[in-house]
Amino acid sequence: MTPRLHELTATQVLELLQNNIVTVETYARGLLDHIKETESIVKAWAFLDPGLVIAQAQTLDQVPVGERGPLHGLAIGVKDIMNSKGRIKLQGVVYHSHKLDMPTEYGSPIYRGQTLTTPTGKTTTTEFAVTNSGPDTTNPCDPKRTPGGSSCGSAAAVAALHVPLSLGSQTGGSLIRPASFTGVYALKPTLNTISTEGQKAIAPIFDTCGFFARCVEDLKILADVFGIEDDEPARDMLLGEMSIALMKTPMWPTAGPGTISAIEAVTVILRERGIKVEEVSFPPEISDPEELDRLQQVITQAEARISFLREYRIDKDNLAPEICEIVENTARITHKEREQASDRYYHMRLIINDWARGYTVILAPSAEDEAPVGLGDMGRATFNTMWTGFHMPVVNIPAFSGANDMPVGVSLVGPRFRDQQLLTTSLVLARVFRARVPRQLSDPS
Amino acid sequence: MTPRLHELTATQVLELLQNNIVTVETYARGLLDHIKETESIVKAWAFLDPGLVIAQAQTLDQVPVGERGPLHGLAIGVKDIMNSKGRIKLQGVVYHSHKLDMPTEYGSPIYRGQTLTTPTGKTTTTEFAVTNSGPDTTNPCDPKRTPGGSSCGSAAAVAALHVPLSLGSQTGGSLIRPASFTGVYALKPTLNTISTEGQKAIAPIFDTCGFFARCVEDLKILADVFGIEDDEPARDMLLGEMSIALMKTPMWPTAGPGTISAIEAVTVILRERGIKVEEVSFPPEISDPEELDRLQQVITQAEARISFLREYRIDKDNLAPEICEIVENTARITHKEREQASDRYYHMRLIINDWARGYTVILAPSAEDEAPVGLGDMGRATFNTMWTGFHMPVVNIPAFSGANDMPVGVSLVGPRFRDQQLLTTSLVLARVFRARVPRQLSDPS
Repeated sequence: MTPRLHELTATQVLELLQNNIVTVETYARGLLDHIKETESIVKAWAFLDPGLVIAQAQTLDQVPVGERGPLHGLAIGVKDIMNSKGRIKLQGVVYHSHKLDMPTEYGSPIYRGQTLTTPTGKTTTTEFAVTNSGPDTTNPCDPKRTPGGSSCGSAAAVAALHVPLSLGSQTGGSLIRPASFTGVYALKPTLNTISTEGQKAIAPIFDTCGFFARCVEDLKILADVFGIEDDEPARDMLLGEMSIALMKTPMWPTAGPGTISAIEAVTVILRERGIKVEEVSFPPEISDPEELDRLQQVITQAEARISFLREYRIDKDNLAPEICEIVENTARITHKEREQASDRYYHMRLIINDWARGYTVILAPSAEDEAPVGLGDMGRATFNTMWTGFHMPVVNIPAFSGANDMPVGVSLVGPRFRDQQLLTTSLVLARVFRARVPRQLSDPS
Repeated sequence: MTPRLHELTATQVLELLQNNIVTVETYARGLLDHIKETESIVKAWAFLDPGLVIAQAQTLDQVPVGERGPLHGLAIGVKDIMNSKGRIKLQGVVYHSHKLDMPTEYGSPIYRGQTLTTPTGKTTTTEFAVTNSGPDTTNPCDPKRTPGGSSCGSAAAVAALHVPLSLGSQTGGSLIRPASFTGVYALKPTLNTISTEGQKAIAPIFDTCGFFARCVEDLKILADVFGIEDDEPARDMLLGEMSIALMKTPMWPTAGPGTISAIEAVTVILRERGIKVEEVSFPPEISDPEELDRLQQVITQAEARISFLREYRIDKDNLAPEICEIVENTARITHKEREQASDRYYHMRLIINDWARGYTVILAPSAEDEAPVGLGDMGRATFNTMWTGFHMPVVNIPAFSGANDMPVGVSLVGPRFRDQQLLTTSLVLARVFRARVPRQLSDPS
């Protein structure tokens, strides 16, 4: 049976769109029909205007084949903490821009008198990507469960086959955890390999823009469009050449049965295929989970206090109480504490990145367990925040499932600025894992 | 003779506005009349809609006295690389917001369905605050000379008495240098004490939002509104208690006669008043000007490459060639070089901040000399970029003049996160300097 259009990955559909085998309008209508059927349960979208999407699709269909952009006609969901104006080159993206009544021209002819008005779809988020509850978005694998936060809508939209790609952000674990919960792939790149401009700032030294997809190839499409490059070209390694560090992290005592069995299963699979897996620990100075957590709290809260002052001044009565507390600094974090925490964390970051360069890749948990039942508790970023803070790229591979047959992912982590090498390695390992898993929730094939 | 309204500082006019002694409309009309008289020469504004300003002023006049915000009715110029939406609490600011056709709601009720449309004045900037030429803004002290870049319009608007306050940004020397050239005060705060969200990103580890004013008191008004706080309350020190480090910096060989004589004069004045001034040098590891410059170039260009990818992708043909070269990485900066440069610079930053805590304040040059003749060459950030990169707060004091009677400022620099102490010290020292200078260009009294 031929897959329907919404079941195709970005890689698959792009070839059809680039060569006019399927028109952008036909593709958009296919997606919109599928969204219409399922959105009342998934609730992934904060904003979606089908009329605007179709109008833009028709415009894109007029672009001659030879002039089509690298994302021609693809549908990309954008987390609703991002201004979508110009984030990706317009031509070929079913999302974009708002009209500015008050122009910001940046002294540049590019933005002079701009009046671009193209449509975007905006996916749900928890309040300012900070709180741990909020939108009623459900997990497409089980609507009684959370999709995880804060990029809940972006993860759910990809898992529910609404769009093949979506943008999200991660300050703690807001990409990798919902990817694990909903059974999709995600890339959290090295910090500041993608500009976070136009994205609501939380803690700039942790804030990272990343994306969700249903295969590693699709993650690579966006990584390339965003210009992510390593110093050295990525190497395609043979399985026997690989050396993998299994890093359960100091947070391992919080791992539930789904995560424990996923890590066990993946280790067995890798070793069966002749890949060297060495279980390792962080050096002693990074082995105290409470200290790690405390440092991360001090740094992110001190930065978030600056980031949310504006919203607090505008309308604190309508701001979530936990954000008000951060702005009011009820934890009484001093600049001195922040400087000391930043300095200590800086040295941890150097140590871990140096250490990571000694392995092909690090294997680590993506979440504590399967997605919790209910929409109130969106899970914790226990296994994610450290990699975010260490600025290291992470890919979630959604290859396993837990006691309730819900997805459980594993994280592949590389040293910073080797994002393309991580994607290349992930492509190989995703194939290895997929061959063995009982159920592939989001397998596009 | 009573000063006219546009001659008043923010501190002076705020009392009148808060108590309805002068209406916001009268004040706005006074400013607009003065702007009309002089703007054809100064050319400080990229956008200014007098009708909108008056309409907003009339609205603000309806706010009861007891409910007026801390900036009620003040006029603030905003550099045209900043989205002005919500940057300061609306009530009481003659600037603000654009209507969003495509709402970004951030998952928060605050921004739900927002349609605020209030006016702003936007001041000129060089292209994306990166290039060193562009707008035809002139120096209010001499229209044949540059006001300095990149926050040229914000500095010129305050110097020309168009507005008492303006916002600008500094990645190299874009606040302190134009303040020195146009004879006004400026504060470049500690990095990330004010959120840079909504401001065009260049090099986030250097990008700093700051402001121009015609007295230290006015700088403090904005510092307070932006919630800048030290760990300890600022101390009012007696002159005899002060210990000042005169730091000519490794860049001193580039200082011209105006700067050399300003630094000599200020040293004499301070010593005559019984203040201890000790001429000091950076530690040996920070004493090579070429290495300092190289590290700054590597870090800022590597970051700017990420920040400008979007504009490059949208329309590289209309982007300044020097920005295209940064995005294309014609300097072939590798991630490895960037990491090494960042690490080396990080350690310099720690050393200098620790060292600075041993003094009341550091005294340093603000610019190489008076503003150059012509509008093509906007001066260099030689004496500013290091303090920006070290994240230290800097105040420009416009107390001196050069061979052509053009303003020459000096920088007062403190350790990071002691911005309020720096303002308190600056208030005292500004009075000391003012008492001695032959000509006070922007003295509001």
